[in-house]
This record gives sequence, structure tokens and C-alpha cells, in this order.
Amino acid sequence: MTVSEHVSHESSENALTHKKMISHVIHLFRDTMPFNRFLQLVFEEQNDSVALRVNWREELTGNPMQKILHGGVTASMLDTIGGLVAIIETIKQTPLSELPTLREQLATTGTIDMRVDYLRPGRGETFVATAEVIRRGSRVVVCRMELHNEKGDHIAFGTGTYMLG
Amino acid sequence: MTVSEHVSHESSENALTHKKMISHVIHLFRDTMPFNRFLQLVFEEQNDSVALRVNWREELTGNPMQKILHGGVTASMLDTIGGLVAIIETIKQTPLSELPTLREQLATTGTIDMRVDYLRPGRGETFVATAEVIRRGSRVVVCRMELHNEKGDHIAFGTGTYMLG
Amino acid sequence: MTVSEHVSHESSENALTHKKMISHVIHLFRDTMPFNRFLQLVFEEQNDSVALRVNWREELTGNPMQKILHGGVTASMLDTIGGLVAIIETIKQTPLSELPTLREQLATTGTIDMRVDYLRPGRGETFVATAEVIRRGSRVVVCRMELHNEKGDHIAFGTGTYMLG
Amino acid sequence: MTVSEHVSHESSENALTHKKMISHVIHLFRDTMPFNRFLQLVFEEQNDSVALRVNWREELTGNPMQKILHGGVTASMLDTIGGLVAIIETIKQTPLSELPTLREQLATTGTIDMRVDYLRPGRGETFVATAEVIRRGSRVVVCRMELHNEKGDHIAFGTGTYMLG
Repeated sequence: MTVSEHVSHESSENALTHKKMISHVIHLFRDTMPFNRFLQLVFEEQNDSVALRVNWREELTGNPMQKILHGGVTASMLDTIGGLVAIIETIKQTPLSELPTLREQLATTGTIDMRVDYLRPGRGETFVATAEVIRRGSRVVVCRMELHNEKGDHIAFGTGTYMLG
Repeated sequence: MTVSEHVSHESSENALTHKKMISHVIHLFRDTMPFNRFLQLVFEEQNDSVALRVNWREELTGNPMQKILHGGVTASMLDTIGGLVAIIETIKQTPLSELPTLREQLATTGTIDMRVDYLRPGRGETFVATAEVIRRGSRVVVCRMELHNEKGDHIAFGTGTYMLG
Repeated sequence: MTVSEHVSHESSENALTHKKMISHVIHLFRDTMPFNRFLQLVFEEQNDSVALRVNWREELTGNPMQKILHGGVTASMLDTIGGLVAIIETIKQTPLSELPTLREQLATTGTIDMRVDYLRPGRGETFVATAEVIRRGSRVVVCRMELHNEKGDHIAFGTGTYMLG
Repeated sequence: MTVSEHVSHESSENALTHKKMISHVIHLFRDTMPFNRFLQLVFEEQNDSVALRVNWREELTGNPMQKILHGGVTASMLDTIGGLVAIIETIKQTPLSELPTLREQLATTGTIDMRVDYLRPGRGETFVATAEVIRRGSRVVVCRMELHNEKGDHIAFGTGTYMLG
């Protein structure tokens, strides 16, 4: 996950709010990051959070005979949702007056390290990745991520450490 | 990395040798795994080993303004080269008479877990992933992987634990 | 975590049952592993599971001014409870008739790799480590571990991959 | 690894130099951290770097029949040397005029996450842990650590992410 550095270059004529800033970050991840579009990742906003969905396609598999998702797709989804949730949760915790500063800071967000645990073969029609923050610092955020298929089978766990700015 | 289960289904009229089996595994990774083709991974056989190369393309980036590789591409390359080298090194260590058994066993090879350390932004024109075995067991192999760009900049480290059969 | 190889050397005049074998493994971890005694780890059997407790002592801290647990103590506890739970859950899943074989196999159990995430400073009077199996294979088991203090503060997460035999 | 917060409280009548500050940090790790003394860790300054040594003692083993080091001792040593080298290398990179500020910052240094790969059973008479920095940031430093025995056998690898301040 390498967050777009133009987070900070987007102009906003109106006052920045938490809601606007979160929507904007999701827009950046969804519409402007080429690899996320290449994978056809779908960003699903749910209440106050976000999940990542991808539908099975042959080109995402690591195996021509079976329909198993390539481990790289799993890693890509976990890294992406972890970074996105790290940013969103940080925005939520930031006082309104400090959002412009945070926006500048987020411009250089990136993954420091990530662990992926592959629990079972990635079989299914739809895969959903979610994340939650487990360590929240001013500059470093750690997330736990999960990937499930449409039956609720738990495909993979992830742990990602992200640098915000 | 989920290794093709049809490793074991390929018929071979001729006697199995280490060299043939290694070539066959590289062929499977290169030509039959859809996601590897989707990423346009190039498999480079070098002496007794193999490396993975990918040329920069916009669709592999995580950022429209910069040319930085998406962390998911890095993870995909490291996972793939780690799994491939784990298999190749295991083949090399296996007595000729046991290669047919190993071929059956490899059919269910897969990644157990992987850590990726992102050292610097993935800038460059060409990226090369390499791997070496650091723990060799009869069923579990651990590899260290690296990603460099064409200037030799070290982009990322990886550590992968693979189950062979 | 390196499991005692004398698991298999303990003689048992009576028939082996799941309950006996689990009690015996806990006994081995608690009473015969020198470093566990050195740390004064307390093994608490709870219903069908086990937790690990340690009371704060100055010699377990990494800091003379504060009372913060040394990260190595956290890692030691997580590794130990992960390995123990990996074995216990494997015993539970094994048919009675195969327990003697499993006992032999467990003799060479050991940790393949472990990740520890330090969530907050290890302050407290008592620390409890727990584990659950997230991937169960015939030879490789992956556990998630947690460390909490007596107030329920979540001190650390762990993920361990263990080779059983 | 939780670095002593009194790094910044040590008074220094004389001007702070790189050499003095490094010596002082090694002193803190060696003489004031109770768990490091409990393990009887020996800090060996070598040229411009430092290594960690421990001699085999029964109480450091995980096994009464064999002489194998407990995985928690390995993790403790790797975490400690990684954190120490992260600090030392950061000191070296810091301009003289900024050392006092760095000293304040280091007061809250700690480990964010660590991975340990156990390569072979920890047999030997003496174990030496070393570390090198692989990612250097102003606040976050990533190290690779290694543990060898006196014969040069490679016992374990580690990767640690440290927050400096």
C-alpha cells in the first residue's frame, strides 16, 4: 500500500470535515490507484467503516485447474484495506482543527511491514477483506485484517504496520 | 502462492530427472498460473536458480502521480519467487528415485505465512525478485526473498514459510 | 518453544486417553522445562483449555524506573502458550487409537516462526497469555496468541507457526 | 524491548558526543535493565558496533534432556539487540547539534513488532546475536537480527520494527 501523495494536493473549497476527508480518501483508493482498479477492487462503505470486495475472476487465480485465489491477490487486498482503515480511523481520532495538518501528513503514508497467514485455500465466488486498528499512534498504526469468502470461510489473516506521514 | 495441483497430473513419457522436473515447475508457474500472467511476471533462469522480473507499468502502481509500485505487486512477486525457489531447492535435495513421490507431494504446496518489509518506495523501471532457502524441512521450507530495482536499490525484504505437500 | 523430546519417552502403564495425554503435556511444560520455571510461569487449566500467567517481578522488567514487562518476557509467554495450545488442540482432534503415534510425533515439536505485535507498554501486576488455533494441519499448526494484564488491557498479540513432529 | 525512559534523565556535565551517547545507551541496556541481567546477557562492543552474547545455562533451556535453548531466550536476545542497534545507528546518523533532542526522543523507544524465524534447534555453548538496520526513518527503524552459536551455526533470524520516540 502506498498512499497517493496527492492526498494533500486536492483542493477543497469548502471546510474540511471528518466525513468529507474520509470520503475523499476512499475516492483516492478506489478511483485513482491503478493497481486497485486493475484488480477491480470494490470499496464498500458500511456505516462508519469500509470493506473491500473482489469477485472471483480467472485472472486472479494461481491455478488453472482449480479456482483458488492467488496468494498475491489476498496479500494485495489485506494490505490495501489495512492501510485504508488505518487512515480512516486516524482521521476519526483527529480534532477537526487538525485535519488540514493530518491531510498533509497522510501524503506520505505507506506500509512498513505486513504478515499474512493463509488459513485455507482461497475458494469462493466473492472475497471480502476487513480491517481493525489494534495499535494507534500518532505516526504508526497497526491493523489486523481478515479475508473471508461469501460463505464466511476464513481464508486469511493479516497484520500490517503502517506509517502515516 | 498456491501451487498448481496438476503438478502431479502432468504425464512424462521419459524418465524424470532433476533438470526436467525443475523446468516443468517453472513452466507451470510461468505459463499456467493466471495471476502470474496477469502481472506479466518474467521468469529468468540463471545458472542453477531462478529470478522473477517485472517491468514497470502504470497498472502496477498504487499512485497515479508517482510511479511507485503498489505494495500488493511487491507481495505477489515475493510470495511467488519464495514458493518457486522452495520447490526447486527441494527438488535438488531429493534423490532421483524419490522424485516421482515428491512430484505427488508438491501438488498441494502452498504458502503458510509471509512477512514483507517495505524498505523504500518502489520506484524504478524494472524490478527483480530473488529468494534463498533458510530452513529446509521435509514438509516445511522457509525462504528469504528480496526485491530490487534496476539500479540495485533494495525495495523490499520478505520471509515466507511454505508447506510442500 | 522447543518441546521436550522426552514426550515420547515417558512410560505409561495405563491406556492413553486424551485427558491423560493433555495433562501429561501440561506437566512437561510446567515442571520439566527449565526456562518456564525460571520465568515462574503458572499454567492454569480452564475447562478444556489452558492459559499462562506470570506475576510481575522486577527481574522481568526491561526498565528500572518503570514496571514495564520486557518484550522478551512477552515473546516467551506467547511462544510457550501458542506451542502448548497447538499440541493440546491436535491431541483433541486425534482419534484415540492414533494417540500413541501422535505422542511419538510430538517429540520433535518446535516453533517455525512467530510474530509479536506490541500494542501497549506491559504495565500491570499479573499477565495472562492465551492462544487459539487458526490453522490446523497434520504437521503444521498456526496459533494466534494474546497477552492481557489483570485489568484486561491488551498488551500484545502474537501469531505462531508450529511444526508438530 | 522497552527502552529505559530515563535515557533522557541522565545528567551529563560534559558535552554530548556520539561516542558518549552510544556508550551510555549500552550501559543502560547492560546495567539497568533487570531482565537483561536476569538472562546474564553480555554486551560486546566491536569496533563501531555491538553484539549480544549469552553462555548456555540449564535455566535457559526449554528441555531438561537436551541442551536446546528455549525459543523465548532467542526471541529476547533478538529483540534486545535489534532495539539497541536501531538506537545506535540512529545516533550515528544524527548531527551533533541534534543529539540532545534525540536523547529526549529515545526515552520512549519500544518495539512495534517482531518476527522470529527458528532455523534449527538452539544447541551450543555460546550464542551470539547481531543486528543490522534495513530501514531507517526519523521515527521508525527496521532491523534484521541473527543468532548463531559458537560453531557459526545459524540458529535464528529476526526482523524487528522499532519506534524511536
